[in-house]
Amino acid sequence: MGKIFKIEMKVRDYECDSQGIVNNANYLHYFENTRHEFLLYIGLSFSDAHQKGIDSVVTHAELDYKCSLRSDDVFISSLMIDRKGVKVIFHQSIFRKIDNKMCCKAKIEAVILIKGILSRGDYYDKLMEEYFLTKKIKL
Amino acid sequence: MGKIFKIEMKVRDYECDSQGIVNNANYLHYFENTRHEFLLYIGLSFSDAHQKGIDSVVTHAELDYKCSLRSDDVFISSLMIDRKGVKVIFHQSIFRKIDNKMCCKAKIEAVILIKGILSRGDYYDKLMEEYFLTKKIKL
Amino acid sequence: MGKIFKIEMKVRDYECDSQGIVNNANYLHYFENTRHEFLLYIGLSFSDAHQKGIDSVVTHAELDYKCSLRSDDVFISSLMIDRKGVKVIFHQSIFRKIDNKMCCKAKIEAVILIKGILSRGDYYDKLMEEYFLTKKIKL
Amino acid sequence: MGKIFKIEMKVRDYECDSQGIVNNANYLHYFENTRHEFLLYIGLSFSDAHQKGIDSVVTHAELDYKCSLRSDDVFISSLMIDRKGVKVIFHQSIFRKIDNKMCCKAKIEAVILIKGILSRGDYYDKLMEEYFLTKKIKL
Repeated sequence: MGKIFKIEMKVRDYECDSQGIVNNANYLHYFENTRHEFLLYIGLSFSDAHQKGIDSVVTHAELDYKCSLRSDDVFISSLMIDRKGVKVIFHQSIFRKIDNKMCCKAKIEAVILIKGILSRGDYYDKLMEEYFLTKKIKL
Repeated sequence: MGKIFKIEMKVRDYECDSQGIVNNANYLHYFENTRHEFLLYIGLSFSDAHQKGIDSVVTHAELDYKCSLRSDDVFISSLMIDRKGVKVIFHQSIFRKIDNKMCCKAKIEAVILIKGILSRGDYYDKLMEEYFLTKKIKL
Repeated sequence: MGKIFKIEMKVRDYECDSQGIVNNANYLHYFENTRHEFLLYIGLSFSDAHQKGIDSVVTHAELDYKCSLRSDDVFISSLMIDRKGVKVIFHQSIFRKIDNKMCCKAKIEAVILIKGILSRGDYYDKLMEEYFLTKKIKL
Repeated sequence: MGKIFKIEMKVRDYECDSQGIVNNANYLHYFENTRHEFLLYIGLSFSDAHQKGIDSVVTHAELDYKCSLRSDDVFISSLMIDRKGVKVIFHQSIFRKIDNKMCCKAKIEAVILIKGILSRGDYYDKLMEEYFLTKKIKL
């Protein structure tokens, strides 16, 4: 339980805006990419799931921007997950690699829709089990 | 006090992802564009300000995704502002035009840096006055 | 024959990169948006068509960048179309509104796939007729 | 002379549009990222250069789209360069890794501006020498 998933990424210049820093919206792209890489790692392809009518949809996002990423920065994007009712909660962080400084921290909540209908999310439970922060109580 | 600023926008197809809905990160783009159009409306260009060393930087964002925008949707993006210490708080919402359904609601906090140094934000006060939700107490 | 379709758009700050100019890739977004607005104007929704298995796919693009768009610039994006065998050719231009200066000129070629199979493109012919630069010869 | 520079990249889901394929504009992002990684590899940071008033600006782009990249695809992005007067010509290709299928081929022309003035491009010559396809004739 409570395992952390991490990937390394690097800022691409087109992700920076005229202030010379990564535009605030791109952190949601980084976080999404990290979630989808995590899903692939545990055996789920986001796009394959979509083909089968299983969609994960973000319902809430909270982001704290601590330090701006800039051109050429390499960063570590980490993820822990938790469950709260039908919601899957992703605790995500981005650290600049060179000095391990936290750049952005986020809580992203998602629900799983099966053919457009809200599911209890059991679909992912087995696969994600060892990553959950809190043990899920069997109902 | 408490005036609301609104603009009309329309989904562009490239903003939709493979689920056929606007990707979650693009709402931050819509909200940013609304803030910058608001600034222009009250007489401030974000890029001109940057040239003069005055930068507004997002420090916190909270988004509630209620209903997904899709291709061809027209929407109203609205903004109200407030102050909290050195922070400017933007309360922003996106409503689908056809049925006035709320699609996304956000609270975006920003600070103003002058040549990289955190400012008290007085710079914008005069211009934004009539938009503040709560009257600023003179210190 | 040979009618021109035009829309007005405005640069959004997040479309500019650290050079302070609109990133070269975003012109393809502007051009795509113009094509899709054109299709809507003549009665075709790109996304509805996709739902029915009819997809327009870009096969070739040529862009001449003449003058960089910047923050706050308003521009006119225009489109003329032509046919060449199974290909639809879009001749597109972007002019800065304030001085009518050409910023980018493009030739975009697309084909139409029906359920993944290359079509002769007759689907759009009737609707687009008055926009074609050269009269299509009946085979 | 004529060395090829290559990097491996992977499609991110948000780069796919509602057709389930990578949006045509994103290939220009992939190509730009490859050029900037190449510049870093030979010792030049695009953003550092910009700080010093040296900007590389794309003036022409030609893209042939051969086969669409999709979610989860890994690809090799390669680059060769050439000179033609003041222009640097980048010959770039994207191959899907799994079957080495060419997905997109491009010719991108750029010029170098020093403090906004067109330069002869000598700045990069020494560094790029071994990558030029055709030997530069000393004038």
